[in-house]
Amino acid sequence: MASSRHSFHIPDSTIYLDGNSLGLMPTGVPGRIRSVMTEEWAEGLISSWSKAGWFDLPITAASRLARLVGVGDDEIAIGDSTSINLFKCLAAGLHARPGRRVIVTEGDNFPTDNYMAQGLAELVPDVELRYFEPDQDPASAVDESVAVVLLSHVDYRSARVRDMVQVTADIHAKGALVLWDLSHTTGAVHCNLAAAGADMAVGCTYKYLNGGPGAPAFAWINPAIIGEVSQPLSGWMGHADPFDFTRSYVPSDGPRRLVCGTPQVISLSALDEALKVWDEVDLDQLWKKSRTMTSLFIEAVEASCSDHGLVLASPRDEAARGSHVSFNYENGFEVMQALAARGVVGDFRAPSTMRFGFAPLYLSFGEVVEAVNHLNEILCNDEWTEPRFAERGVIT
Amino acid sequence: MASSRHSFHIPDSTIYLDGNSLGLMPTGVPGRIRSVMTEEWAEGLISSWSKAGWFDLPITAASRLARLVGVGDDEIAIGDSTSINLFKCLAAGLHARPGRRVIVTEGDNFPTDNYMAQGLAELVPDVELRYFEPDQDPASAVDESVAVVLLSHVDYRSARVRDMVQVTADIHAKGALVLWDLSHTTGAVHCNLAAAGADMAVGCTYKYLNGGPGAPAFAWINPAIIGEVSQPLSGWMGHADPFDFTRSYVPSDGPRRLVCGTPQVISLSALDEALKVWDEVDLDQLWKKSRTMTSLFIEAVEASCSDHGLVLASPRDEAARGSHVSFNYENGFEVMQALAARGVVGDFRAPSTMRFGFAPLYLSFGEVVEAVNHLNEILCNDEWTEPRFAERGVIT
Repeated sequence: MASSRHSFHIPDSTIYLDGNSLGLMPTGVPGRIRSVMTEEWAEGLISSWSKAGWFDLPITAASRLARLVGVGDDEIAIGDSTSINLFKCLAAGLHARPGRRVIVTEGDNFPTDNYMAQGLAELVPDVELRYFEPDQDPASAVDESVAVVLLSHVDYRSARVRDMVQVTADIHAKGALVLWDLSHTTGAVHCNLAAAGADMAVGCTYKYLNGGPGAPAFAWINPAIIGEVSQPLSGWMGHADPFDFTRSYVPSDGPRRLVCGTPQVISLSALDEALKVWDEVDLDQLWKKSRTMTSLFIEAVEASCSDHGLVLASPRDEAARGSHVSFNYENGFEVMQALAARGVVGDFRAPSTMRFGFAPLYLSFGEVVEAVNHLNEILCNDEWTEPRFAERGVIT
Repeated sequence: MASSRHSFHIPDSTIYLDGNSLGLMPTGVPGRIRSVMTEEWAEGLISSWSKAGWFDLPITAASRLARLVGVGDDEIAIGDSTSINLFKCLAAGLHARPGRRVIVTEGDNFPTDNYMAQGLAELVPDVELRYFEPDQDPASAVDESVAVVLLSHVDYRSARVRDMVQVTADIHAKGALVLWDLSHTTGAVHCNLAAAGADMAVGCTYKYLNGGPGAPAFAWINPAIIGEVSQPLSGWMGHADPFDFTRSYVPSDGPRRLVCGTPQVISLSALDEALKVWDEVDLDQLWKKSRTMTSLFIEAVEASCSDHGLVLASPRDEAARGSHVSFNYENGFEVMQALAARGVVGDFRAPSTMRFGFAPLYLSFGEVVEAVNHLNEILCNDEWTEPRFAERGVIT
């Protein structure tokens, strides 16, 4: 496939294997943001809400990523954070299943997913949270009291991918809805919400979508049910007629009811610009590149570093694996710092997981091989034992 | 006082009387944002969460506005929207007053305040919403079932200012908490939350604080109670140890527990830069300038336009008035469009309110006089009757 590498700023002497935490900056973003500031804000001022399209941006920006998750162009809203969008959708799920008051979530889900569910369960007296454990089938935790099941499609540590079609069907068979967190999926891993008959989804845009630090998140509710569900973060920008200034909230049709307050236009515009990079991308080829790249990495690490006791913590089957690869290693923290000192940037999750993300949009196979060479040298030379690599305090 | 006018980009031939809707752009912002993008994001990448201070920015940016609302430097958090922050604080108020399940709000409050309270009351089965009407004393709506009263300090239409000290005391005497919405206060009107013994406050930063379109909002809970209250939007960035990735949410000490998801760093950085303008401002002089300016405007309009039937819709007493002035006029929409065509930008609230905002930080008295001259000419010449001024669709 034609690489989109030329659309990104790549720091000198860097192999960036952390695009699953914060994506690289698309080169078009600074110019766009300069124009948002000096033309739209400084000169256009309040007229830019209509003339520069700020008001519609939560929907128009979202349309650019619709095909990445397999839904229609006018079905997604962007705004707020993944955490806030989780709360909206969990509450919408409870609203859509009256009489069912249990939320099921995986105990080892990304922390904020569970924290938001906890906040909701503590706020609403009769709502209960039920965890299932990693070795359990999510559907086995579902009974007639369960309204909604919250699942990560790609696990943030192991990269294990859930079978969205099968899991959705199994949970639907028990009468509950499914809310998919696509934070580690979107932009690197195949996803078709419509084909799976999924109910709801949220996701992050600062990872593989390269929207910038803390870029606003997306939220989707299946058009088949969105007209009937209510979400409690009912701010004025989700109102059917926001400028009528009426006393009572009336939700807008469609995804706009997932918009809450006034959008953070500068950050949202950066994301809108970043999403333009996707216009020409052949998605099937991209998903395939991700799988090949992670397979190559696993094979190369195991071939060259096999004497050092690294333990693969990701699925070996590429169909069950997202776009990052984790290895457990007791001194993983020090190794990741030693790699960073050589310009190979990955990240680390306590207690011992070395995590390498592969953004297929801008990484080359040559970089993957080179990264493994660095890793091998660091391990063979005990380079990671240098005291400077044990210093904590840097979020990587 | 020394004017801060030189710190702003002022469009040519424009008298901007809408800084209470979207403030002018401080000239320092584009350079800061360029650096955030090309240095912190593009080069620093994930290391910028610590090295560029992104992680602490919700608190460090907030410290810059603390003195504007009369609280300590380490008591405020910035993030999310005013709407979202209203939800956090309303729920915190319910949590702090167990057994009391009523939220009181003014029926004519800014719509999103009521919409968020409605969302909360619909979500939590036993919570009830009670409105009071404009001619009613807020405390008269409070009984032993009321947990929290939500009030705008400055009314968004009339600019009427509530007596924060008296109203807070009256409501406290009945055992309820008060949540102040400072959106039309902060940066133009005197406010001392600590001296009033206030409980909670939220506010907008894209009006008189000039943080940019949709800039993130602030939230404050009195340090005397924040350690005991819980808020349900408990995202990972408010956790005591966000990078420990534990299953259960444990709130951070202090205002950080009001932070939810990952902050939108680009928009937040623009606000942080905009707030630097305030460092050298003599606040008492600024509040006085606002009062003098709005008094001048009222007197000049009434003196020169008195034959045309404009009705003052703001308090005549400057101590009871915020930093905008409203006049009701049947063809107010057309008049505001005619003013805009002459470069005088104000705004309009249906059905007939012409609203003029006076940002004392950058407006001059000469501009106020000039604006009134334009208004007088438009009315005397029936200029507003031109058909082009009746066209709707522009948000002004």
